[in-house]
Amino acid sequence: MITIQGKGACGAIAIGRLSFFKRGEISVKRERVEDTKAELERFEAARQEAQSQLRALYDKALIEIGEANAQIFDIHQMMLEDLDYIDSVTNIIENQQMNAEYAVAVTADNFAMMFSSMDDEYMKERAADVKDVSNRVLRCFQQTADGTVLSGDGLIICADDLAPSETVQLDKSKVLAFVTQKGSLNSHTAILARTMNIPAVIGAGEALNPEFDGKPAVVDGYTGEVFIEPDADTLALLKLKQQEDEKKKALLQELKGKENITLDGRKINIFANIGGLSDIGAVLVNDAGGIGLFRSEFLYLENNNFPSEELQFATYKKVLESMAGKKVIIRTLDIGADKKIEYFDLDAEENPALGYRAIRICLTRQDIFKTQLRALYRASVFGNLSIMFPMIIAREEILEIKKIINEVKIELAAENVPFSDDVEIGIMIETPAAAVISDILAPEVDFFSVGTNDLTQYTLAIDRQNPKLDGFYDPHHESVLRLIQFAADSAHKNGKWIGICGELGADLSLTERFLKMGIDELSVSPSLVLSLRDKVRNSSCK
Amino acid sequence: MITIQGKGACGAIAIGRLSFFKRGEISVKRERVEDTKAELERFEAARQEAQSQLRALYDKALIEIGEANAQIFDIHQMMLEDLDYIDSVTNIIENQQMNAEYAVAVTADNFAMMFSSMDDEYMKERAADVKDVSNRVLRCFQQTADGTVLSGDGLIICADDLAPSETVQLDKSKVLAFVTQKGSLNSHTAILARTMNIPAVIGAGEALNPEFDGKPAVVDGYTGEVFIEPDADTLALLKLKQQEDEKKKALLQELKGKENITLDGRKINIFANIGGLSDIGAVLVNDAGGIGLFRSEFLYLENNNFPSEELQFATYKKVLESMAGKKVIIRTLDIGADKKIEYFDLDAEENPALGYRAIRICLTRQDIFKTQLRALYRASVFGNLSIMFPMIIAREEILEIKKIINEVKIELAAENVPFSDDVEIGIMIETPAAAVISDILAPEVDFFSVGTNDLTQYTLAIDRQNPKLDGFYDPHHESVLRLIQFAADSAHKNGKWIGICGELGADLSLTERFLKMGIDELSVSPSLVLSLRDKVRNSSCK
Repeated sequence: MITIQGKGACGAIAIGRLSFFKRGEISVKRERVEDTKAELERFEAARQEAQSQLRALYDKALIEIGEANAQIFDIHQMMLEDLDYIDSVTNIIENQQMNAEYAVAVTADNFAMMFSSMDDEYMKERAADVKDVSNRVLRCFQQTADGTVLSGDGLIICADDLAPSETVQLDKSKVLAFVTQKGSLNSHTAILARTMNIPAVIGAGEALNPEFDGKPAVVDGYTGEVFIEPDADTLALLKLKQQEDEKKKALLQELKGKENITLDGRKINIFANIGGLSDIGAVLVNDAGGIGLFRSEFLYLENNNFPSEELQFATYKKVLESMAGKKVIIRTLDIGADKKIEYFDLDAEENPALGYRAIRICLTRQDIFKTQLRALYRASVFGNLSIMFPMIIAREEILEIKKIINEVKIELAAENVPFSDDVEIGIMIETPAAAVISDILAPEVDFFSVGTNDLTQYTLAIDRQNPKLDGFYDPHHESVLRLIQFAADSAHKNGKWIGICGELGADLSLTERFLKMGIDELSVSPSLVLSLRDKVRNSSCK
Repeated sequence: MITIQGKGACGAIAIGRLSFFKRGEISVKRERVEDTKAELERFEAARQEAQSQLRALYDKALIEIGEANAQIFDIHQMMLEDLDYIDSVTNIIENQQMNAEYAVAVTADNFAMMFSSMDDEYMKERAADVKDVSNRVLRCFQQTADGTVLSGDGLIICADDLAPSETVQLDKSKVLAFVTQKGSLNSHTAILARTMNIPAVIGAGEALNPEFDGKPAVVDGYTGEVFIEPDADTLALLKLKQQEDEKKKALLQELKGKENITLDGRKINIFANIGGLSDIGAVLVNDAGGIGLFRSEFLYLENNNFPSEELQFATYKKVLESMAGKKVIIRTLDIGADKKIEYFDLDAEENPALGYRAIRICLTRQDIFKTQLRALYRASVFGNLSIMFPMIIAREEILEIKKIINEVKIELAAENVPFSDDVEIGIMIETPAAAVISDILAPEVDFFSVGTNDLTQYTLAIDRQNPKLDGFYDPHHESVLRLIQFAADSAHKNGKWIGICGELGADLSLTERFLKMGIDELSVSPSLVLSLRDKVRNSSCK
């Protein structure tokens, strides 16, 4: 038995046979051409053919994995329309007098290298996309079919990495799991695996040797382990784990549509945290009662410049419409600290976590803030919107925010743009200061949402991403729980509600304590909603 | 009138005449020598002469500015005994066949450059010392007298920077104030000015032009301003300020020996914070009741390797003996965050203020910690010692510290080394966690001392050294005051005392609030002790 350790990207156990993904070989020859005009025409024809394939793929993906995930094929189409890309190919054909295939291959390599070198996870991932879409064009020259034909079923698909288009084109009825050598937990493979609920292990490295093709194996998507030619004991153990897992999942599925009600009859809200439109499917599938934290940063992280009011408006409208009247709490821009964006042109800081971030940026660069608030209020008529502000430490900050909101409303009214008057305004309780003076802050807002990660970090004075401090970090530190209790009391004395959207909210060992504190809402990753519902239904507030 | 802005290093107003410090010109010629043996003898003779001058200067300084400040002449003697220094001079004479003066000058330049390039404030300051002592040797070759002859009195001495030896050799009866172009608040000039209580402005820059020599001027050591040829209005204003200042100082002097007692009869302790032995004189002169915070870091910062148990013992013994039975609270090593020491070999951190620092280093590198604790307990029989631990967040940390202390005591007992059994053990309250669970921590210790700088930084999640956040930083934030109140209540419920040793302790606008909270001790800079006593005597706890 050989055991390979990767990262578990999607839970569940799969028992099957390894099948290494084979790509139609694309060989590109470098040839000098005389008739560059004819060559340019060949490129254009291949490009058009690729575009038409992508449109078809988009339609297939829309049905299989939902609109949010299908968008990748929109992005691919955009890449093929990108003027820099076309210019590069054209230039190599015309000026170097090279064949179109070579021009495309060189352009793909250059663009991929450029993306890879960027200091931004999202842009790095684009390197795979530009290669993927260029290969599609190359196959169009050669009339080669894309994808791979799967023989047999019960397959554990192995690859260095899988392009989104490759994942979509696989015959899912034959696929049990994915294992890839490369990839991060935020790669498309990982996201798609989670959406399609297929066990996946990524980043398995070189240990995942193509020589293993065809061998029996077990994939544990929880632990990230892959057992090749498992011995009888391991197999028996994992079969048992698989059975229990499936039983548990079946039980959780039964909880869909049921109430989040404690044994002693108190109902609470279980909402979901999301980081982009692509997570909405998971929110709905897991029957979350709303979105408790929509991290709006991705709009800023995924663009090369400040996202326009229009783009933001369209995004907020989309999530509000998708949630069809359920509560959607959008948190305003929370960058700074470990989230850096080049075009914000922020200075390097000695202690970025204690630095210029989140609301501190918004209150000093109000043009950015106002654009976001305008987009939010414009979208507010399309659903049930709440707005939440991060890193608050003082009542004066809330008053300043409300002043700016008022200006935005007056502007919109003057422009005859409709907006809702029922937008709830809340703040994150994620600094010790906010928790300690929560009785002073509560009268100014409609709700609190506790960000336990930052609250713990500041309260303990420990950067939780610093591995040297693991021995000192206590995620259940009594001081943090007391601060949450005080904030809950402050909220309720003022007739406001309080939720938890940090990681502790999903910590089932604390659920009962939170319920006893009077917490009204817990917002967690979509995949944890049902197990939290199960815990709530078996807890008591007394 | 010309106004120059520098940094005020020592308060008080001086009205006098600018006198630019003139150094005996030292011209060094580069000459080839045949008889290198004779040249080496010339160097040795000059070096011996310089050493004998330094011994005499040490004796003069001992009387004028106390032992701690006189130590600089010990350091100078050590520099002239340094083998690297002597080797460098010898080498240039023997191998390059150069004259002794040239060899000394080149060596001085090289060593000064080396010190200047070091990433350590203390070592940077040594650059001036090595030049100073080398100039002394050069003058010995030439039989030139050092220092300058002051003509007239009421002089405001101006210089690029003043070497300690130069300051000591000045006729103080003629000197009203110092103004220097260079220098930091921790330079010798600044420290000596404070010890000798002479108004000083440092870092005035190029604006301090030697052309102003002889002109009338006013120095404001509070604001760092120097007014050259002041107009009548400015002069009148500053004369008034000077009179009020002197009146106030006279009043404060009358407070020496008096009690720190409130209008309604409550006595509190006013102690002093110090950062090295050189501050002890100021503690005694200002009649502090004890030392509330002895920052032991300087022992580590001023050495190129871990300070030995012997060196530490001698230092702690010295401060305990100097304070003659008054309470001395020594805080154990607090490095990390903005205090970096190369030989600790600490990793770079994303957020050092939330990182591996203070007690976290001591508890994971117990060899360093144990050496300090052994030195402290050995010194404990020489006075009234308390030990205080920084950056505590949990009861378990205190239990671990007490376990280590117990081991140290068992070791010392086994070695028949005497130690006191009355050493009080306290902790800093400088993390929100410690304040919030202070009721859990109080039973384990003898006292609390609130470190308001860090407590505020973590509570507000604001790095106070980050200028971009000045608009958000509120040093009187209600949350911090509430945390102090809770810690005070926790201490008193458990029969323990609580002090404040952070900057807020010296904030006279908060003194009455602290007294009402029941704070038992305030520890401040030595120079602020008497004005705080004045404030306490005019406050009420009711």
